[in-house]
Amino acid sequence: MKKLVLGSLSAVLLASSMTATAMDAEDAIQFRQAGYKFMAWNMAKIKAMAIDESVEWNPAQVQAAANSIAATANSGMGALFIPGTEQNVGDTKTRVKPEMFTDIEGVTEVGMAFHKAATELAAAAETGDKAAIAKAFGATGQSCKGCHDKFRKD
Amino acid sequence: MKKLVLGSLSAVLLASSMTATAMDAEDAIQFRQAGYKFMAWNMAKIKAMAIDESVEWNPAQVQAAANSIAATANSGMGALFIPGTEQNVGDTKTRVKPEMFTDIEGVTEVGMAFHKAATELAAAAETGDKAAIAKAFGATGQSCKGCHDKFRKD
Repeated sequence: MKKLVLGSLSAVLLASSMTATAMDAEDAIQFRQAGYKFMAWNMAKIKAMAIDESVEWNPAQVQAAANSIAATANSGMGALFIPGTEQNVGDTKTRVKPEMFTDIEGVTEVGMAFHKAATELAAAAETGDKAAIAKAFGATGQSCKGCHDKFRKD
Repeated sequence: MKKLVLGSLSAVLLASSMTATAMDAEDAIQFRQAGYKFMAWNMAKIKAMAIDESVEWNPAQVQAAANSIAATANSGMGALFIPGTEQNVGDTKTRVKPEMFTDIEGVTEVGMAFHKAATELAAAAETGDKAAIAKAFGATGQSCKGCHDKFRKD
């Protein structure tokens, strides 16, 4: 629960403290996109093993992927949504909707759902139970979609 | 130790099993670059708090950043160095040296050093001891540099 609270706080409140490092808006967009892209790879690995069964089942690899997703989800990515990053910056394009910077209640809701799902996916992966992992994977995917539908342009 | 072994194996041996998913070479380069970039953000946060002291000390944020680095280091990124990714692909450029695909002994050495350092950084972060974290951070940075010097073009 401690991590969930930290995640939620980071999504909403830490931006101000991080701007003290004078992070460049373009860097901030690229860092957050890197985090999402790396999670996409790890999600794809779990999907291939637990859902599609196109890659041989390997509990250690599933656990490593789930740990990476959970750690990324709990890394305080909210701090990367600094003012100025609600739009394209230079050659760096973003699909974020400006509403993500104003709908604090909505952001908190999807953020909490994602942190919870990712943390539960890592816990399921630790058991090695394929059915439980598949279920937690589905819930994590839904939590990703929850944010995409609300705060990401097509 | 289990994680270190997994990391080492992944760096050298898993590429063949992952090619079963027919991963696109361009995707593979972009996924690994995303991982490195996201680690760079987390390294920068720890540096700002533990070394430069330009951002207020926050043990929970340091721990979250260190966990993310360790989980990325142990996620099996070696599987992203598939044949065809030793050079630029389409518009996706890579700075990797071709030697990374042939010098198995050298790759194993720098890979093991990195996994060890990242795992120890996460362990130090868990204690909240600033001096220990600064030391482990320095060792992690050196392990990054060890690979860059050997296998990355300027």
